[in-house]
Amino acid sequence: MALFDYSIQGTSGHARAGRFQTAHGEFTTPLFMPVGTHATVKGITVDDLHRLDAQVVLANTYHLYMRPGADVVAEAGGVQDFMGYDGPMLTDSGGFQLFSLGHLMKTDEGGVAFRADDYDGSKHYWTPEQNMAIQEQLGADIIMQLDQCVGYPATRQQVEASTRLSWQWAERCLAAHKRADQALFGIVQGGMHRDLRLRSSQELQRIERESLAAGGRRFDGFGIGGYSVGEDHAVMFETLGETARSLPEDRPRYLMGVGNPTTLVKAVAEGVDMFDCVLPTRTGRMGTAFSSTGRMNLRNAKYARDFGPLDPACSCRTCTGYSRAYLRHLVKQNEMLGGMLLSYHNLHFLIDLMARARQAVLADAYGEFLAEWMAGPGAIDY
Amino acid sequence: MALFDYSIQGTSGHARAGRFQTAHGEFTTPLFMPVGTHATVKGITVDDLHRLDAQVVLANTYHLYMRPGADVVAEAGGVQDFMGYDGPMLTDSGGFQLFSLGHLMKTDEGGVAFRADDYDGSKHYWTPEQNMAIQEQLGADIIMQLDQCVGYPATRQQVEASTRLSWQWAERCLAAHKRADQALFGIVQGGMHRDLRLRSSQELQRIERESLAAGGRRFDGFGIGGYSVGEDHAVMFETLGETARSLPEDRPRYLMGVGNPTTLVKAVAEGVDMFDCVLPTRTGRMGTAFSSTGRMNLRNAKYARDFGPLDPACSCRTCTGYSRAYLRHLVKQNEMLGGMLLSYHNLHFLIDLMARARQAVLADAYGEFLAEWMAGPGAIDY
Repeated sequence: MALFDYSIQGTSGHARAGRFQTAHGEFTTPLFMPVGTHATVKGITVDDLHRLDAQVVLANTYHLYMRPGADVVAEAGGVQDFMGYDGPMLTDSGGFQLFSLGHLMKTDEGGVAFRADDYDGSKHYWTPEQNMAIQEQLGADIIMQLDQCVGYPATRQQVEASTRLSWQWAERCLAAHKRADQALFGIVQGGMHRDLRLRSSQELQRIERESLAAGGRRFDGFGIGGYSVGEDHAVMFETLGETARSLPEDRPRYLMGVGNPTTLVKAVAEGVDMFDCVLPTRTGRMGTAFSSTGRMNLRNAKYARDFGPLDPACSCRTCTGYSRAYLRHLVKQNEMLGGMLLSYHNLHFLIDLMARARQAVLADAYGEFLAEWMAGPGAIDY
Repeated sequence: MALFDYSIQGTSGHARAGRFQTAHGEFTTPLFMPVGTHATVKGITVDDLHRLDAQVVLANTYHLYMRPGADVVAEAGGVQDFMGYDGPMLTDSGGFQLFSLGHLMKTDEGGVAFRADDYDGSKHYWTPEQNMAIQEQLGADIIMQLDQCVGYPATRQQVEASTRLSWQWAERCLAAHKRADQALFGIVQGGMHRDLRLRSSQELQRIERESLAAGGRRFDGFGIGGYSVGEDHAVMFETLGETARSLPEDRPRYLMGVGNPTTLVKAVAEGVDMFDCVLPTRTGRMGTAFSSTGRMNLRNAKYARDFGPLDPACSCRTCTGYSRAYLRHLVKQNEMLGGMLLSYHNLHFLIDLMARARQAVLADAYGEFLAEWMAGPGAIDY
């Protein structure tokens, strides 16, 4: 397979099973990607990422730009070498952090000014071109365009302006991006508005056509951003499917920042291929486990003398090696191992869920898989 | 080998290399034992304990008695089953926690009253017999007598009183201890006073003789307690060797609560066989690493672009998989993985140090090993 080729190996309804080639090896879809914000998935060793078959690990450009600095990561040989993970990696642009975490100072057509209040309060200005240069320094296999994300609710006018700015920046990112070993994904915005979503998708494809006509590059995949920003997931599903399917069939579709198991299962049915979220590790550190029978809060006293496995249906190291009573004890005592073991299990849960989803697609039985999930006790929001 | 047999496989000067049989398998000495206070070695999985060849893992009776409760641990099948570690384990009596951490309310000949201020402020009273019953519930392979530990400095009168009480409690513990699958260690006290140390040792041996004459049990090993309580280690070495060698040759000698690499190397030369300490994991969580060239504070800016291994002389997972620059980044960002990886390395360092000490004893070259260590850059206090 050529670099950045996305080969569809099977479909079932709108659901797809595919394979994508990166400079650090291939990955298969549907796929959940663990988030390693500061070039570390919290509480998880690199050995464990391999044991989990994590495939792609995500890191955050904003955080690495601040600490240790993109130049340090570049000097290490890129984010893979820096963190010691030799598989495929993806960096987001930092756009989500800038627009959602209150760092924003000012956006103009040229770029975005922000203040790093969670570090040293220093002021920065990123153009799309500079953002590409930073992500090229970080050196992940897949990088994302700089985009502008609006929260929810937002006025149509706000959404329209940010969506337009995002595709304008997409064009500049595509022109600026040079590294041949890095895939670049454009990002669809448009809030909860069907027409703005489709417009965003069309503009990205127009930009790509013009780039190709001028001898430039294509987008090697597409992010679907601006969801899971406060809306009910039912609102997202009003427009998600059409948005996903408006994108080229031969490119992966990546729904950004979503990690709820049920949402993943439903989004795959709409034609989405990739996901990332801090949910499995964040909830794990707080003492909550995903399970085949729904959410488990390990702080609950009912687990104090429950010496059975966390999730009897799960084959992960946490479920085969430790009891509910012990995990509860660790969580109650704020022991690191509690967060480590629950994060490991939650990651395994989502990665395994997507592996099973893939098998269902390859067997052209995704409808049954979805129906079974939705009828089961795990079909809840976390 | 019969249960609790300690076979001396080699000596070199006063240093010994031995083998001790427990109900969960044998372990070899000299030995450093990781401390799993709440039945978890902080930041270390059970898989990692095996990978580290930790052999014996220690847990704290006081903490497990408070949470989750000795009855819960007993219901799990004992502390090994509770934490999922199938190797030998040791519990201390809790004496050190009661007398050193400010829980003490009142000691009389009968026992000790304490208030659990670090939990719920509840009040408790332990007799030596009750302490044995609790440690039998916890079910470790080696349990320790209840003793009274005094701090440093202390008046001779205080030391004398606590030493006497400790041997009186040793007698009661030996009489009360019933489980045939658990070894019981007596504990030598005596502060920094040579005569009180030797008296304590003699009294323990008298108690044992009388017990055996009456058809009772022996002590299966001896703890050396009441050191590393604030004194300079040079003060400890004024009396440590004579104390250790005053104990029966055919029983292991366990210097409690000491984890400084140089102190271990020197104490082995004095005839000590076993050690435990939170130092490797506690300093690891704070960003400090043991190394063959001395202490490393990973917060130091000089490591920011140092992409070499933590300790080039070390073969552990941390040193082979991650760079100093990356470890510094993790420590600076307070990422869990920083504490996990440094704790792992520090444990490996002490376990490996004792494995090399053992080889030196077996080769009857411990003097050279000690001299080489003391002449090297690692011969510092941590």
